[in-house]
Amino acid sequence: MRWNTWVDSELAAIRAEGRWRQNRSFDAFGLSGALDGGPVISFASNDYLGLSAHHEVVQAAQQAAGRWGTGATASRLIVGTRPCHGDLEAEIADFRGCERALVFPTGYAANLGVLGTLGGPDVTVLSDELNHASIIDGCRLSRAVTRVYRHRDMDYLESLLRETTGRSIVVTDTVFSMDGDVAPLHTLAELAAHHGSLLVIDEAHAVLGPHLDPVDVPGLDLVRVGTLSKTLGSLGGWVAGPGPFIDLLINRARSYIFTTGLSPADAAAALAALRIVRSAEGESLRQRLRSIIDRVQPGHPSPIIPLILGDEGYALDVAAQLLAQGVLVPAIRPPTVAPGTSRLRIALSAGHTDNMVDHLTATLDSLGLG
Amino acid sequence: MRWNTWVDSELAAIRAEGRWRQNRSFDAFGLSGALDGGPVISFASNDYLGLSAHHEVVQAAQQAAGRWGTGATASRLIVGTRPCHGDLEAEIADFRGCERALVFPTGYAANLGVLGTLGGPDVTVLSDELNHASIIDGCRLSRAVTRVYRHRDMDYLESLLRETTGRSIVVTDTVFSMDGDVAPLHTLAELAAHHGSLLVIDEAHAVLGPHLDPVDVPGLDLVRVGTLSKTLGSLGGWVAGPGPFIDLLINRARSYIFTTGLSPADAAAALAALRIVRSAEGESLRQRLRSIIDRVQPGHPSPIIPLILGDEGYALDVAAQLLAQGVLVPAIRPPTVAPGTSRLRIALSAGHTDNMVDHLTATLDSLGLG
Repeated sequence: MRWNTWVDSELAAIRAEGRWRQNRSFDAFGLSGALDGGPVISFASNDYLGLSAHHEVVQAAQQAAGRWGTGATASRLIVGTRPCHGDLEAEIADFRGCERALVFPTGYAANLGVLGTLGGPDVTVLSDELNHASIIDGCRLSRAVTRVYRHRDMDYLESLLRETTGRSIVVTDTVFSMDGDVAPLHTLAELAAHHGSLLVIDEAHAVLGPHLDPVDVPGLDLVRVGTLSKTLGSLGGWVAGPGPFIDLLINRARSYIFTTGLSPADAAAALAALRIVRSAEGESLRQRLRSIIDRVQPGHPSPIIPLILGDEGYALDVAAQLLAQGVLVPAIRPPTVAPGTSRLRIALSAGHTDNMVDHLTATLDSLGLG
Repeated sequence: MRWNTWVDSELAAIRAEGRWRQNRSFDAFGLSGALDGGPVISFASNDYLGLSAHHEVVQAAQQAAGRWGTGATASRLIVGTRPCHGDLEAEIADFRGCERALVFPTGYAANLGVLGTLGGPDVTVLSDELNHASIIDGCRLSRAVTRVYRHRDMDYLESLLRETTGRSIVVTDTVFSMDGDVAPLHTLAELAAHHGSLLVIDEAHAVLGPHLDPVDVPGLDLVRVGTLSKTLGSLGGWVAGPGPFIDLLINRARSYIFTTGLSPADAAAALAALRIVRSAEGESLRQRLRSIIDRVQPGHPSPIIPLILGDEGYALDVAAQLLAQGVLVPAIRPPTVAPGTSRLRIALSAGHTDNMVDHLTATLDSLGLG
């Protein structure tokens, strides 16, 4: 088959399934702006504390570009490490209570790096079925034996761990990106420690926790992964853990070695944002986010709130109606979520004003979804 | 084996091989700065036209951070596309003579996306043995049947193509990153067209060519890949090609769909740099780069000049002697290059002043390497 013919047939199949996707241009500073020209409020951003539009964060990015130029100009190990990379890594390590940390240009690259370096054909990876695509791709790239356990099912995980010999890794998101529910971290840590398995947790969406303090779980080997592009409003990913694990990543992780370092502006923005996160201002932003979540769904553990609608067409239709009211809430459909569980995915932020949240809840009410 | 024990034994093996690597902090604007505190001139940067330190590029990054904030705050398809992303994609497409282009947060992600989307178990990928790690990882992630051909050996490639049935991809760097030599693009294009194979070329280091105009090769299916982090002084990667191929990437490429969009500052910096590249100023920067290359190695086709020294220890020793003179030229060793071909890798830039180049050549001369 000719390539053009094959590509056309694949595109036709995507269209026939009603799953065609295209980029829409969002012209915005913060959560309010114009989507393809029409005014909208974004309830789709992962900017959970609104820090991508914080004046100190913006200024840090601008100053870094002025001081070190617009790019790292090389891979980190060659000559792509600026002082802001080291400062950021030290701050992340301290923040996560780990010996060391390492910054990758994306969170996707961080998961590929961790699993590609620590995995291998002689390693078994036990992975929650709702883990992020970058974890799945990391498992695939690692050539490890990957066993998927039912979502948050600790009995199932334990039965798999009992069957596992040799080195093993338990890997989980701590907040699941499409459901906004949280992993049973303490049980995971106890199971991993009991079976001598390494626990890898991805804290990408964990602005409000859940928290895991490894001192509570004797004998636990723990590696933390996270992102600079959500709560920290920038771009990039990080890995934090014991010093030797970080040294091994520096020497082996292909997605770290063979890629240009994060731009100084991105690194400096993330560092400025992290310092805010750790300050009294950060605490008050988290309290504000908590109160906004409680207005939309009391007690929900994360800023990601799914409204399960079931049918794909219905979810798309409701998202279009919301958009017509200036409320951008994406419809999430298969293959991203399981068939029959199409949903709206509401992402809340401390950057949302009371008026924005009022508008969201009123619009949802008007569609019978309140 | 306990994880800590395994990690320690891996680290010991790396040390025993003399291949321990660690980050060194480079405090610089442009090519001159301090490496771990000592003054150096970098002949290690991929900033081939010096644009990461160009005032217009820096200003574009700063303005973008001020206008759109420090991050894209979401994946491109959700709400992570700002006007500067679309503008950059249109400019790249026009620059490369393609219908459309798509920007990824890294070049590594671009290669994973292209090969992961177009590859598959029913596809054969024919790959030059010296292709970049991101192409190798893309092949692995795609699950395609990968056949590696001897470096630039067109007879070998043709024999593999004759044996290949079904859809196939020929993939090559156009400038090889560790040797600075160039692919025989016209022959590659003719072979691919003759056998109905898709040609994927990675132009990451191709600031001075080689150039391929597909109108010279009737029937050629061509996809171009490149980077924003070398000649364009920023961060990110791109893919350019026929519209349907780009649409398929948007809908299928996991390293595009499941990752945060490039920061507005990175996208705007790359766009400003690309506009300079396409201007009279860009032409004069390329001429300057050409003349600098000719001073170091007359007629060499790229700004990457390897000085093959053979032995690993010798290469490290020479690099250390150069560094003591303030000249940063990295030693490249196995496994990045084949055993017995350890080398210095000199990367030249239009941003190097005459004095800098004089200092390089004088220092090489003083070590008997001129």
